[in-house]
Amino acid sequence: MYVILAYDIGEKRVNKILKLCRKYLNWIQNSVFEGEITEVKLEELKIRASKIMDEEVDSLIIFKSRQEKWLDKEIIGKERNPLERFL
Amino acid sequence: MYVILAYDIGEKRVNKILKLCRKYLNWIQNSVFEGEITEVKLEELKIRASKIMDEEVDSLIIFKSRQEKWLDKEIIGKERNPLERFL
Repeated sequence: MYVILAYDIGEKRVNKILKLCRKYLNWIQNSVFEGEITEVKLEELKIRASKIMDEEVDSLIIFKSRQEKWLDKEIIGKERNPLERFL
Repeated sequence: MYVILAYDIGEKRVNKILKLCRKYLNWIQNSVFEGEITEVKLEELKIRASKIMDEEVDSLIIFKSRQEKWLDKEIIGKERNPLERFL
């Protein structure tokens, strides 16, 4: 399964969420991730994220596509260096 | 065509981009939009966005799917009130 994940998280919690998401997906923009993930791993990510989030103010949106080929991606402007993902 | 658009834009230009994107798509999170749009309208949006953006630092990512049904959306935490989109 291919997912796009975008978060909007309060400053105090944002670093924790960033670190968590980077364990499961590729970081492509400030608060956006993408990648191939299994249902089980995605559930795990959601549970772990819920524990960090303040659900009154924070939000996490996940778009799922059964196949990556159904999605076409285009980037305008600065593209995050793929190497940064591993720093 | 169904698109998801996420931006990462410098503070000085972010309001202009926000206003622009709201003319074409539905605002679903801080810097994320989605919606049905034609190829022509999307091209127009991209051209107008390019004029506002500083392409050395800003970025705009667009995911396109031929059909919305190929994408499954899930929101965890606070959901933006659909009415806010029109304010």
